[in-house]
Amino acid sequence: MKRKSLWASVFIATLLVVSHLYAGGLEERANKTFKPIPESAPALEGNPATPVKVELGKMLYFDPRLSASALISCNTCHNVGMGGADYQETSVGHGWQKGPRNAPTVLNSVFNIAQFWDGRAKDLMEQAKGPVQASVEMNNTPEQVVKTLKSMPGYVRMFKEAFPGEKDPVNFDNMAKAIEVFEATLLTPNSRFDRFLKGDGDALSKTEKEGLGLFMDKGCSICHGGVNMGGQGYYPFGVVERPSDEILQGDKGRFKVTRLKSDEYVFKAPSLRNIELTPPYFHSGKVWSLEEAVRIMGSAQLGVKLTQAEVEKIAAFLRTTTGVQPKVEYPVLPAPTEGTPKPRLD
Amino acid sequence: MKRKSLWASVFIATLLVVSHLYAGGLEERANKTFKPIPESAPALEGNPATPVKVELGKMLYFDPRLSASALISCNTCHNVGMGGADYQETSVGHGWQKGPRNAPTVLNSVFNIAQFWDGRAKDLMEQAKGPVQASVEMNNTPEQVVKTLKSMPGYVRMFKEAFPGEKDPVNFDNMAKAIEVFEATLLTPNSRFDRFLKGDGDALSKTEKEGLGLFMDKGCSICHGGVNMGGQGYYPFGVVERPSDEILQGDKGRFKVTRLKSDEYVFKAPSLRNIELTPPYFHSGKVWSLEEAVRIMGSAQLGVKLTQAEVEKIAAFLRTTTGVQPKVEYPVLPAPTEGTPKPRLD
Repeated sequence: MKRKSLWASVFIATLLVVSHLYAGGLEERANKTFKPIPESAPALEGNPATPVKVELGKMLYFDPRLSASALISCNTCHNVGMGGADYQETSVGHGWQKGPRNAPTVLNSVFNIAQFWDGRAKDLMEQAKGPVQASVEMNNTPEQVVKTLKSMPGYVRMFKEAFPGEKDPVNFDNMAKAIEVFEATLLTPNSRFDRFLKGDGDALSKTEKEGLGLFMDKGCSICHGGVNMGGQGYYPFGVVERPSDEILQGDKGRFKVTRLKSDEYVFKAPSLRNIELTPPYFHSGKVWSLEEAVRIMGSAQLGVKLTQAEVEKIAAFLRTTTGVQPKVEYPVLPAPTEGTPKPRLD
Repeated sequence: MKRKSLWASVFIATLLVVSHLYAGGLEERANKTFKPIPESAPALEGNPATPVKVELGKMLYFDPRLSASALISCNTCHNVGMGGADYQETSVGHGWQKGPRNAPTVLNSVFNIAQFWDGRAKDLMEQAKGPVQASVEMNNTPEQVVKTLKSMPGYVRMFKEAFPGEKDPVNFDNMAKAIEVFEATLLTPNSRFDRFLKGDGDALSKTEKEGLGLFMDKGCSICHGGVNMGGQGYYPFGVVERPSDEILQGDKGRFKVTRLKSDEYVFKAPSLRNIELTPPYFHSGKVWSLEEAVRIMGSAQLGVKLTQAEVEKIAAFLRTTTGVQPKVEYPVLPAPTEGTPKPRLD
């Protein structure tokens, strides 16, 4: 339990620092802990966005023909109309297989330090290549994807425009780059909470303000702070108290990436933005109630038994983080040709 | 073979009538046979459209939570970005089951005399109730769908606005009505062919015009005429020559609905609008090439062995029927609550 003591010490130290912020009013304190979601996509290093690249990325994001079966697109599990997720415990992919983890939201994901629950992809470009190839998700190969894209003149034209001057623009890396610039546009600004951060004191009710206060006072915001209210660091699930086996599902999290003993059961803290839209919760998707998730976090991460009133206030506050959902016009996908690979269902 | 002789006589008689139209020029003849797709949705008897009802219909159309698994929406098989269909031989539904028939396009489907390959639904409202309940598609029940919709305040509000004055507006019939008014907006006007019909002689190339001429001269337009180039009547697949068992797949078509011997292997002639976007072809989806489909139709329906040049010209003409695809802004779906039924994957 040494690891846990270390983590506990870090937490207590952080809580002390946090307590120094108490001097100011709620809005001032909140502004030291969080930032509003910006209105437009941040620039991506090495992958400049252009309108045609964003449009191509959107087409790819919605095209089920990137999967072997031609049935599953990025949007299947990261549904832009459903908070960027899929309302499943763990996502269902090729052959109706149930995947190992709950689909994280694509919304605002550009603000995360890394992607996937275990952070194994350093950015959205790297992330985009994963599910396409995972046998339990889209079950395709880079070669087959490129063959599919090259078979459609509509895509060849778009890749040429999106990656001007390149000799062979239709390739797997460019697919991922285009998806990344599109995903970076999937932001949810102007939530009631963000309006509060920007100075509109009436944007939150009394209960919601109390919830925000508790969220900071109890320590939730240590892991769930910043612009994305999470996504900035890795923490053991069960810093203080181990969650139930039902919730953990034996998933050792980041340990699978680093093979470090200290990374057992460590996960990237997920963003809590728009959280009401994306049940069920946790990497295992075993908890459907936001209140229940808050209660579990209190005991597992903070060693605090939150009262029912506290739980309800924090949940009420979290529901104010739902922002204006991105406007996405459904893309018209290129016509297939006889050279386009046929669906493979097996 | 009496039935076939009867059909053959009907065809010859129709061909004679058609030949009377030969007097005029190509554009004049075409305008006697076809009509352009209108720019806006036709009025639906007993189901007046309002903006809020159309918007609700769009939400329902895209909501996978209408299916038992919460994975399959109307748009899964009738993808508005893929010509209103799904690029599958036959659609794949609940549990990765392969359905019995190829998904007909939703685009312009409001102009069909009835829905499904066998016309078993008299309109889109009746159609919408089918896949939701089919065990091989969405595998849900009306009761469960209504429970799902009633669990989400966002839907309850929309149903109230879309069906004002009704005591219990959230019901299965109203779900279907809303979907119908949305689907009626999914039109593809202003194809090059339609611009030709409206007087733009340069909208078609010489080859495409020859294809159009052949399409009328050979008799294709007898079944594939009107605004939707099909969808107006029922015909045996194999009027003159029985297609291969591979293509028929033992499907007796409309016989399953009427139980009339004369309806064996009878299907509703599908619309040929946007046909290049929706391979594979026929009720069985066994033919991926448009040229091959044209060739088969020539021999099976018209008893004509089309030359390769004729096939190519007709296919080139058919590709001019691709219209401007509908603009659809992806709907933001209502947040679930704890009362919303969980996905059932089994």
